[in-house]
Amino acid sequence: MSDCKIRGVVPPVVVPDTPDHELDVPSFERLINYMIDAGVDGLFFLGSSGEVVFSTDERRDQVVREAVRIVDHRVPVLVGIIDTETERVIEQGKRALALGADALVATAPFYALGGPVEVEEHFRCLHEALDAPIFAYDIPVCVHTKLGWKMLAKLGAEGVLAGVKDSSGDDISFRYLCQENEKLGHPLQLLTGHEIVVDGAYLSGADGSVPGLANVEPKGYVRMWKAAEAGDWATVKAEQDKLNELSHIFDVTTGLTGYAGGVGAFKTALWLMGIFDSNTMPRPVKAMEGENVEAIRKVLQDCGLL
Amino acid sequence: MSDCKIRGVVPPVVVPDTPDHELDVPSFERLINYMIDAGVDGLFFLGSSGEVVFSTDERRDQVVREAVRIVDHRVPVLVGIIDTETERVIEQGKRALALGADALVATAPFYALGGPVEVEEHFRCLHEALDAPIFAYDIPVCVHTKLGWKMLAKLGAEGVLAGVKDSSGDDISFRYLCQENEKLGHPLQLLTGHEIVVDGAYLSGADGSVPGLANVEPKGYVRMWKAAEAGDWATVKAEQDKLNELSHIFDVTTGLTGYAGGVGAFKTALWLMGIFDSNTMPRPVKAMEGENVEAIRKVLQDCGLL
Amino acid sequence: MSDCKIRGVVPPVVVPDTPDHELDVPSFERLINYMIDAGVDGLFFLGSSGEVVFSTDERRDQVVREAVRIVDHRVPVLVGIIDTETERVIEQGKRALALGADALVATAPFYALGGPVEVEEHFRCLHEALDAPIFAYDIPVCVHTKLGWKMLAKLGAEGVLAGVKDSSGDDISFRYLCQENEKLGHPLQLLTGHEIVVDGAYLSGADGSVPGLANVEPKGYVRMWKAAEAGDWATVKAEQDKLNELSHIFDVTTGLTGYAGGVGAFKTALWLMGIFDSNTMPRPVKAMEGENVEAIRKVLQDCGLL
Amino acid sequence: MSDCKIRGVVPPVVVPDTPDHELDVPSFERLINYMIDAGVDGLFFLGSSGEVVFSTDERRDQVVREAVRIVDHRVPVLVGIIDTETERVIEQGKRALALGADALVATAPFYALGGPVEVEEHFRCLHEALDAPIFAYDIPVCVHTKLGWKMLAKLGAEGVLAGVKDSSGDDISFRYLCQENEKLGHPLQLLTGHEIVVDGAYLSGADGSVPGLANVEPKGYVRMWKAAEAGDWATVKAEQDKLNELSHIFDVTTGLTGYAGGVGAFKTALWLMGIFDSNTMPRPVKAMEGENVEAIRKVLQDCGLL
Repeated sequence: MSDCKIRGVVPPVVVPDTPDHELDVPSFERLINYMIDAGVDGLFFLGSSGEVVFSTDERRDQVVREAVRIVDHRVPVLVGIIDTETERVIEQGKRALALGADALVATAPFYALGGPVEVEEHFRCLHEALDAPIFAYDIPVCVHTKLGWKMLAKLGAEGVLAGVKDSSGDDISFRYLCQENEKLGHPLQLLTGHEIVVDGAYLSGADGSVPGLANVEPKGYVRMWKAAEAGDWATVKAEQDKLNELSHIFDVTTGLTGYAGGVGAFKTALWLMGIFDSNTMPRPVKAMEGENVEAIRKVLQDCGLL
Repeated sequence: MSDCKIRGVVPPVVVPDTPDHELDVPSFERLINYMIDAGVDGLFFLGSSGEVVFSTDERRDQVVREAVRIVDHRVPVLVGIIDTETERVIEQGKRALALGADALVATAPFYALGGPVEVEEHFRCLHEALDAPIFAYDIPVCVHTKLGWKMLAKLGAEGVLAGVKDSSGDDISFRYLCQENEKLGHPLQLLTGHEIVVDGAYLSGADGSVPGLANVEPKGYVRMWKAAEAGDWATVKAEQDKLNELSHIFDVTTGLTGYAGGVGAFKTALWLMGIFDSNTMPRPVKAMEGENVEAIRKVLQDCGLL
Repeated sequence: MSDCKIRGVVPPVVVPDTPDHELDVPSFERLINYMIDAGVDGLFFLGSSGEVVFSTDERRDQVVREAVRIVDHRVPVLVGIIDTETERVIEQGKRALALGADALVATAPFYALGGPVEVEEHFRCLHEALDAPIFAYDIPVCVHTKLGWKMLAKLGAEGVLAGVKDSSGDDISFRYLCQENEKLGHPLQLLTGHEIVVDGAYLSGADGSVPGLANVEPKGYVRMWKAAEAGDWATVKAEQDKLNELSHIFDVTTGLTGYAGGVGAFKTALWLMGIFDSNTMPRPVKAMEGENVEAIRKVLQDCGLL
Repeated sequence: MSDCKIRGVVPPVVVPDTPDHELDVPSFERLINYMIDAGVDGLFFLGSSGEVVFSTDERRDQVVREAVRIVDHRVPVLVGIIDTETERVIEQGKRALALGADALVATAPFYALGGPVEVEEHFRCLHEALDAPIFAYDIPVCVHTKLGWKMLAKLGAEGVLAGVKDSSGDDISFRYLCQENEKLGHPLQLLTGHEIVVDGAYLSGADGSVPGLANVEPKGYVRMWKAAEAGDWATVKAEQDKLNELSHIFDVTTGLTGYAGGVGAFKTALWLMGIFDSNTMPRPVKAMEGENVEAIRKVLQDCGLL
């Protein structure tokens, strides 16, 4: 698997909880099959929207174990090994590989204060310790460090990194990274996490996307990717426009911030669509209720998903 | 121990590493005894400067186990249970209590985006799950959330929190918290982490301090606390002034940011003073070398510590 | 005046507007006399709470002209020359001096992005162009640049700056500045804008304060300063405690942020106390109404000011 | 002019200074003609890179007067009326209109703290007071407020705003704004300031761009716009790729931040190309020298501009 290049649509998989906060395996299986049947090119487990930081190590292992079993080699399995600093991340990586992950996704260190020197050393340590393709996960909104495109390109050229999952919101940096990666012979697979402007990222040269919204509507993202591969930019844009209407599940609710409003919207939509058995959130986050659920139902109806 | 109020000087203990990144137990024992002999009132292990986020769970357990053994009930042992979200923090807390911690110190959740609703629910969940005094650790520079004084006071009055360790850098908020806590009958023990302006925090009404610099010079902080207890504010200020001269170990080095410059200065000073056998830092941070070491040596000499 | 050192209580004067947004001169005169009669040591016009950035140049001139006339040399008149970059600030300074200002108060440049090199050059240009004592106004919440204490001390020692008005919220930096200033022979007059923790700043060595709340209750701040001069720290703290109860005019209102809630509270209090004829705010800010006014009335009553 | 829709390439014009900081009119004339000859669709004076916040009111008037004279109705003249709060911005607008501006560009209020209520009221006040098309200038890096797309669309539909110049770096928000504007009948002209990813903004539906880099290479941006109008996205991307190579004038220098490195690069390039007579910067910013100039010369040579 480490030889094959990961590209195309690789959704970050949302994780269903039972009302008493156990992993809801039947719902998980339905969601995974829903996306694979729609034609996605890979699946990313234990990402930021995959409850990674809410899950104990035991739960993380359970998620990976079930994921590997359900996916059953139909698509590559990427696993987030999100933890604070190097030694802890390496441990997460070793466990994920032992359970069958095909590739690993790691952020910059967080919590302790550092700088670019520590970030670069961190990825080098991960590469030395973990025998698998490593994607750098650029998500400053969570880790409060932006990964510089020059460093990423250098680590790609040296074989330290296999790719980048860009959720930085910095399309300028991503554009520079695409151009530099091209000059270096394309060592990195560059995936955008910008589900709302995947079209622009494809035009910039992205090798694929990691759109959370593909949990709800994977077919649209698959069509968009195929259109991009064919150079049919009018269709790319039109598909993005349609998906963005669906994305209003993020802003029709009230009183919720961050994870509660974002992943909460995914879970509520999947619950209303019958893929999940509940919209339970991990502690300390509360599940959506009442008018917020109805607001999401209306968006799904308007988009033809109910 | 849960009945006794923690107050006075409670340094956050710096953790020594051997050159191959193992816990250096003899150095650890020297440092703990150095501070207890100087008269500190408690010790806080696995705080931000105690390598907590750099340590695997196994290493965290080792640190707590050795700390409890070495301290041997001479002073209360507080343990940081720093992790990303509720379930993971509860797990850290259970392990720390099983190993003999007297009190636990927990931050707001971090990495995932949330708001005050989630923060309050988080501390309530910790209190339900963990049978020990819990201190809220207010450290927005690391977790990017400021704990509101109204929420803290309310959780104190309800018995959810036993105290606050304030490293927020917001002396206004701390002052309001002190006054509100007093009105409520002083349910919270309020400790400041502001090692440079402990005097102002004492004047505001703090019950004690958690100064990292007390690893290097505990006697000064002990004298300051005794002067504060006696209402001798001229001495309080004079002791702070002297300690602040020592604190220039933070700004005489070059090319280092964050943890490398801060905890790195502590480790280098303790190494130069013969308390630590090396100034090794946890990966991915590099130890201080060359001119930076000499700059710290000079500060220690100027302050009479060498 | 440039020989005399400005120290003690120097309130930033709130500016009253008539309902049709003209300067309300009678209210202005009442407020100025109220504070001078209470014993303040100076007055700071056109500060952040003095509508400086809301005022056209013509209005600024009117404020300074009336201020100089009403104060009539009873106390020093400091004038804020707040504008974006060097040439504009110099112009503001020349006009203020022509109208009779005793000292000028200038921030770091803002809007355009720069760094410490530009900030230092900026203050040097102001000093060359303006024949008056210049106070650096450290207010990162408005200008998004923190003035470094090493730079400030250096500019003091070189005679470029006469003092600092610190509204940075960074008590550590202020403490270092106080100690460094002392070592250099005290070239700078260091005034704190932290109205809630003036006591801590006095203990740190501040030469005075610039408390907005002194518009409402100047006598308390005057008593606090006298106690600090006498080394009576118990009284200093007790006066601060009382003033902080009054400061809840900032947090009893709802639905207001920033200037609307802060300066709006001052104006509403002064209106309720009969010193201002209205609580009109400058465009685009709305005046407080209804329950917010009643909430402030209650705080004033509880504090014995109504 | 207020009937005609501004669209296409509208560069923000860089302003040349003589070595003694006067407006260098001959250089200014050369630059304006260089861009008009290249086929740009409008010119934006006194933008963030047009020294607006560095210029006294007198200088601003001189810039607008000369700009109107030189442009001589060949393209529309947009003028930035950047100032802190409403009354000051209105004054800037009145003067610009009196001197012949065709449209005005205004940011959110800055310096004083406010919120969305004040921002919306601010634009309504501007619209009432100024008889001209008003573009909202979304530049949070300078004013520290992001303009919400729902508010912008609403103000467009109500006729308060004529367009938006988006320099927010938030391509998600821009995408939502484009879609909402379309649903409302396209009341707003939406121009992107993202010179590095103009291609993505065009794909999103932008009506044009305001690229600073077009001062140096206007023809590339003109070709890109024509390709976008023709739906030839491969050419759009290819032109952007080429322009991005030129954009490395921003990152080949060392020791410069913000305005000094950004606008400094433009001025140095224009000087090397013979369009400007010097690369003088406004106080307190220093002009580029030595190796930085040579680094920019090399980029220009590599891109065939020297």
